[in-house]
Amino acid sequence: MNEFMRAAIEEAEQGIAQGHGGPFGAVVVKDGKIIGRGHNRVVANNDPTCHGEISAIRDACSKLNSFDLSGADIYTTGEPCPMCLGAILWANVNKIYFGCTIAENDMIGFRDDVFYKQLSISTEKMKDRIVQIDHNECLALFKKYAAIKNKTMY
Amino acid sequence: MNEFMRAAIEEAEQGIAQGHGGPFGAVVVKDGKIIGRGHNRVVANNDPTCHGEISAIRDACSKLNSFDLSGADIYTTGEPCPMCLGAILWANVNKIYFGCTIAENDMIGFRDDVFYKQLSISTEKMKDRIVQIDHNECLALFKKYAAIKNKTMY
Repeated sequence: MNEFMRAAIEEAEQGIAQGHGGPFGAVVVKDGKIIGRGHNRVVANNDPTCHGEISAIRDACSKLNSFDLSGADIYTTGEPCPMCLGAILWANVNKIYFGCTIAENDMIGFRDDVFYKQLSISTEKMKDRIVQIDHNECLALFKKYAAIKNKTMY
Repeated sequence: MNEFMRAAIEEAEQGIAQGHGGPFGAVVVKDGKIIGRGHNRVVANNDPTCHGEISAIRDACSKLNSFDLSGADIYTTGEPCPMCLGAILWANVNKIYFGCTIAENDMIGFRDDVFYKQLSISTEKMKDRIVQIDHNECLALFKKYAAIKNKTMY
C-alpha cells in the first residue's frame, strides 16, 4: 500500500487507541516527504474543528512558518468533510488522496453526508484533485472503530 | 445596530489593527450572552484555518468544555466560507448572522467566491438559519481593510 496512507492510518490508530476521536488520520506531503501529520482530537480537545486534516495542515504550516502549502498533497483515511475541504483550499494543498468514502463515514455514525446535502456540495469540479486509494486498509480501520463500545460520538 | 454584531466588528477591528489577518470577527452567543469570540489570525499565526468563526467556536467550546454548541448562534462580519460553514455545522451552532456577503469578500481580495464555485456550494437548504444584518457597518469595516497598503494577503 501507499507509504503515506500507511502513515495516515498509523496516526488514526494512535488517536482511537487514546480515545481522542474518530478514525481519521492525515499527513501532508511535499517533495516526497511528510511535513505535517495529525489525527482527529474532537473528543480529547473538546474542539469540533480538530479533524485529522485540519490538524495535519496546522502542523505542516507551523513547521514551514507559512499559511501556504502550495505544492503539497494530503493523504487522509476518510474523504474530507466540507470544513476540511475548505481548509485544504485555503492552504493551497493540491491533491487529496483518501481511503474511505463519505458514505462510509455515515456507516460508522458521522454526519458528513448530512452536511454535504445541507450545503449541496459536489466535488465534481475538483475531481482531478481527489483520488481514492487503499480503500480496504482504511475500511478495516473504520470497522475497528465501529466495534469500540461506549465511545463518545460527536 | 445589533449589540452582538458590534462585538464582532470590535473583534475584527482589533485584528486588523494588529495585522493579524482579514477584517473578520465573530462572537458565539447563547442565552443572550457572548460565550466565545475571535478574529482572523491567518497571517499572525501562519494558520490558514484560523478564521474568525473557527476562533470564536474554539473559544466557546473551550469555555464550555464541550464540542457541542447546541442552542448557540454566531455573529460574523462576513458570510462564512465553506470551511467555517462546516465548522458551524459540526459544532451544532444554530443561526448565522452575517454582515458582508461572499461577493464582498471577493471585492476586498479573498477567494471565498472561488471556493463556493469549486465545491458547488449553495446555502439554499440552510436559508432559514442564515440572516444578513448590519450590512452598512460591516461594509465600512471591509472598506477600511481594503484601504490598508502593503498588507499580507492569503
